[in-house]
Amino acid sequence: MQIGMVGLGKMGLNLVKNMIRNGNEVVAYDLNADAIAEAEAAGAQAATTLQELVAKLDAPRTVWVMVPAGAPTDSTIEELTNLLSSGDYLIDGGNSYYKDSLRHAEMCEAKGINFFDCGTSGGQSGALEDGNFMIGGTSAEAFEHLKPLFEGIAEKDGYLYTGKPGSGHYMKMVHNGIEYGMMEAIGEGFEVLEKSPFDYDNEAVAKVWSHGSVIRGWLMELAEEAFAQDDNLDNISGKMFSSGEGKWTLEEALDQQTSTPVIAAALLNRYRSMEEDTFTGKVVSALRHGFGGHAMDMKK
Amino acid sequence: MQIGMVGLGKMGLNLVKNMIRNGNEVVAYDLNADAIAEAEAAGAQAATTLQELVAKLDAPRTVWVMVPAGAPTDSTIEELTNLLSSGDYLIDGGNSYYKDSLRHAEMCEAKGINFFDCGTSGGQSGALEDGNFMIGGTSAEAFEHLKPLFEGIAEKDGYLYTGKPGSGHYMKMVHNGIEYGMMEAIGEGFEVLEKSPFDYDNEAVAKVWSHGSVIRGWLMELAEEAFAQDDNLDNISGKMFSSGEGKWTLEEALDQQTSTPVIAAALLNRYRSMEEDTFTGKVVSALRHGFGGHAMDMKK
Amino acid sequence: MQIGMVGLGKMGLNLVKNMIRNGNEVVAYDLNADAIAEAEAAGAQAATTLQELVAKLDAPRTVWVMVPAGAPTDSTIEELTNLLSSGDYLIDGGNSYYKDSLRHAEMCEAKGINFFDCGTSGGQSGALEDGNFMIGGTSAEAFEHLKPLFEGIAEKDGYLYTGKPGSGHYMKMVHNGIEYGMMEAIGEGFEVLEKSPFDYDNEAVAKVWSHGSVIRGWLMELAEEAFAQDDNLDNISGKMFSSGEGKWTLEEALDQQTSTPVIAAALLNRYRSMEEDTFTGKVVSALRHGFGGHAMDMKK
Amino acid sequence: MQIGMVGLGKMGLNLVKNMIRNGNEVVAYDLNADAIAEAEAAGAQAATTLQELVAKLDAPRTVWVMVPAGAPTDSTIEELTNLLSSGDYLIDGGNSYYKDSLRHAEMCEAKGINFFDCGTSGGQSGALEDGNFMIGGTSAEAFEHLKPLFEGIAEKDGYLYTGKPGSGHYMKMVHNGIEYGMMEAIGEGFEVLEKSPFDYDNEAVAKVWSHGSVIRGWLMELAEEAFAQDDNLDNISGKMFSSGEGKWTLEEALDQQTSTPVIAAALLNRYRSMEEDTFTGKVVSALRHGFGGHAMDMKK
Repeated sequence: MQIGMVGLGKMGLNLVKNMIRNGNEVVAYDLNADAIAEAEAAGAQAATTLQELVAKLDAPRTVWVMVPAGAPTDSTIEELTNLLSSGDYLIDGGNSYYKDSLRHAEMCEAKGINFFDCGTSGGQSGALEDGNFMIGGTSAEAFEHLKPLFEGIAEKDGYLYTGKPGSGHYMKMVHNGIEYGMMEAIGEGFEVLEKSPFDYDNEAVAKVWSHGSVIRGWLMELAEEAFAQDDNLDNISGKMFSSGEGKWTLEEALDQQTSTPVIAAALLNRYRSMEEDTFTGKVVSALRHGFGGHAMDMKK
Repeated sequence: MQIGMVGLGKMGLNLVKNMIRNGNEVVAYDLNADAIAEAEAAGAQAATTLQELVAKLDAPRTVWVMVPAGAPTDSTIEELTNLLSSGDYLIDGGNSYYKDSLRHAEMCEAKGINFFDCGTSGGQSGALEDGNFMIGGTSAEAFEHLKPLFEGIAEKDGYLYTGKPGSGHYMKMVHNGIEYGMMEAIGEGFEVLEKSPFDYDNEAVAKVWSHGSVIRGWLMELAEEAFAQDDNLDNISGKMFSSGEGKWTLEEALDQQTSTPVIAAALLNRYRSMEEDTFTGKVVSALRHGFGGHAMDMKK
Repeated sequence: MQIGMVGLGKMGLNLVKNMIRNGNEVVAYDLNADAIAEAEAAGAQAATTLQELVAKLDAPRTVWVMVPAGAPTDSTIEELTNLLSSGDYLIDGGNSYYKDSLRHAEMCEAKGINFFDCGTSGGQSGALEDGNFMIGGTSAEAFEHLKPLFEGIAEKDGYLYTGKPGSGHYMKMVHNGIEYGMMEAIGEGFEVLEKSPFDYDNEAVAKVWSHGSVIRGWLMELAEEAFAQDDNLDNISGKMFSSGEGKWTLEEALDQQTSTPVIAAALLNRYRSMEEDTFTGKVVSALRHGFGGHAMDMKK
Repeated sequence: MQIGMVGLGKMGLNLVKNMIRNGNEVVAYDLNADAIAEAEAAGAQAATTLQELVAKLDAPRTVWVMVPAGAPTDSTIEELTNLLSSGDYLIDGGNSYYKDSLRHAEMCEAKGINFFDCGTSGGQSGALEDGNFMIGGTSAEAFEHLKPLFEGIAEKDGYLYTGKPGSGHYMKMVHNGIEYGMMEAIGEGFEVLEKSPFDYDNEAVAKVWSHGSVIRGWLMELAEEAFAQDDNLDNISGKMFSSGEGKWTLEEALDQQTSTPVIAAALLNRYRSMEEDTFTGKVVSALRHGFGGHAMDMKK
């Protein structure tokens, strides 16, 4: 089928290639001309404005938005709701907060545009070859129109229509919350091994755990690859950046009054990693000194 | 090769079948006559005492102990060190605490017996078909003798000689610590979905997450199977039993002064699940009532 | 001085008594006529509408709002901003979310009304005798006018002008976050004692810890009182209700990317206490069964 | 009464002064001659060996051991059990692990020596003036003999005979576990304030919270003192040392299978504070990079 792709970052461009390889026709747009050129090189048709992109698509049109969550997605979707027509399809494949998607869905519904919030997992390699997609939106019937697209670009059994608008991004949010917990668990395990009285070869450990163990999975395979390049990860620091979905998952849990201690601990440990030192620690240290005369670590 | 198997529980018996299918000869012993009969039916030779088992093996003998960790393993290994001879091989494939294995290794070393502490992962299906083994012990040279055995019963690339005695069970302990964290993360994620404003089909969620997502792996596949049988898990309670290795991992972390908040939270949440109610909660509730007159939940 | 008190619940009524005992004149209003009658009995003048309350005060008026946070406080303050005049004083002594207070401050500022967000601690006994107040608002100069009021109703050194509008309720929010952590720590300690091999008398423990120990403080004194009434707290359940400020503190920490593991754990443990059982636990139990054949606790 | 004091560190010396001020006679011994001289200056009689100390006491003798927990306490108590006689009193006032105290109690019992494990709280100032003592040991009857001593050196109502041997140090262990949780909660709260949009004066905050708030107590007063000296604690780092009792409390909770998430989080956060960076963080960062191409923080 024919898809208009808006946003040609690393994920968007890989999706374009994936779509084309699977027999789709893509009209590609980005603010960055080089990215458009790359998409053209991959076989896409170029569009230099959203108007042009929409104009180059036959009705009913399908537009896939793959731009950063928040303001960029907001303004892109707003503009597209003005350009698209009733019966068209608008897919937000980015990492939008599900409450934003609820809003976007309403905006589209008002115009008769079919809106789908599509959480995308599988990383860059998944985008390129066999992605993973959880898609909420207008209706199961409307989703039938998009099935051939996902059937092609997804890993076998790797996509799901999740129900009402918002449910796709919500499920992707929770997916990432789980991911935070799993990654931290793996990291902690390797740290215990690192400080053990034994002398483990991290790459070999990750490799054997990737073959037949209970904790095998893609993350362990990625650990093997990472250790293959730098067995003690000497070249990087332990700063753990985060891009919002772990936080959203915890906030959602708080709103539900659901106890999620592992997701919370994983998220807070990321925040901790961004700090050289903490005021919490200073206060505790000062209190210990206050009652027990215990030594404090003085700044030079 | 020829192996003496001591302990024919669900793991031991599956290993016997796995070994025989891979061309090994097994002499099998258990306290339970029915289990011995099952092993015989699977092609093993029966032994009704440890003495008989040892007598039926040609030197250098290889004996695999697969009995519950703690006292049963202790006494079995003690007895075997008296029956085996210098140059023989003794494998503890159970879930022994690594400090016990250090002790067992010393006992064996004193007699010239090669000792290997073998952590076994992959569950019952792994034991039966393609197991996962992390094996510490006497020396890499001595391990060469056992390689053909593991090459057969393990998943391809699914075994590793981990180094000095104790390092195999230590690595298995940490494997389980990671497992605790990952399982709890997955559980929390499904609980957030369960309480969400959307209506997810848990089996479908676990299935799509098993195909191409970042969090794919065996645990997610097992979740799919569990939900396939009972989509809301209505038939079971949320009591999370534990068998020691998560606790050992945390205790080890404490001894190392390693911060492992996710493994700790996962373990403590298992303990919490075994309680109907907590004294902690009563105290907090009574304190809130004390200063603010807040309502308490009275026992009828 | 003369104060109009809006809201005569347990905290409001105690404050009225405290104010009167300290030589202030109070005009009291509540939706509930009985509460007004109680205030009258305590020496206050009654008002049956907000209009009447405002009319009975001399300019510059001081009105203290002590109604539930959220919608009730919102509508009360909205109505009062219409009734009060430039130069009047409006104090929100409730547990409002500080972002609501920022909004209220703006509304007041637009009318020239001095707004103060006053976090109130010390519980019911504090309200009655020697309260604790953290007060943000319009300006330090404007606060001078209110000082005599707080000097009287507060414990000595028990009030503070905290700065800009919002800072009073923000500080009260954090106070409660700390309180959550402290209470949970105390509860956990008593639970460990409860399950110890020893036979402690909880009341005696709390009493001795209240006299000279490092962890002495009001919460420990309240624990002593609670145990004096019911040494094993047999009459109450461990359900730990919460009224929002712990959650706000954690949400604020998340927005700041501050790692607050103890406040998070205390809050999540409250949520956990409200559940009989968890879906998390069911999933973990099902996964354990899936790979290891471990027993699950079946629902009858 | 007459007491032999073994160990004249900061706690021991303060106790000597406290005992003398309360009308007791003290024979003091330490490995360090200067410390003995200080004790003499405070009115104690000097002893330069344990033998001499014991010889200078009248039967039934009372010896208070105040040396570092572990090996020093072990060897001191072992030596004293040889020097003391049936009917004498031996008090371990240090921070011994309660299982060590159980052992010490047995050793003493075998000789007919009354043994008391005395947890000491209240810090250095408490040792000097009004300490806090939780004392397990031989029997309530035997404790009667020591009551006058504790009645003098303790804060009013600040000592308790807690029951069987071990119960004193056990209770002190739990006291410190609670202390860890409370201190971390206080630290986290001040960190949230520090990063807030407001400009709090930490000393003023701690002061007002010390006067009438729910979270008032000695720790908050110590916070006030610490901030009075250095309002932003600029001169110290946030390294939080620990001396064992928080760890013991958590280990005890694990053995009981008691869920103590706040005590665990507080302890692990101390360990985290001792590290510049973590291997956990490196692993998580490498995994994020692996699947998403997310930027890592490279070591220069």
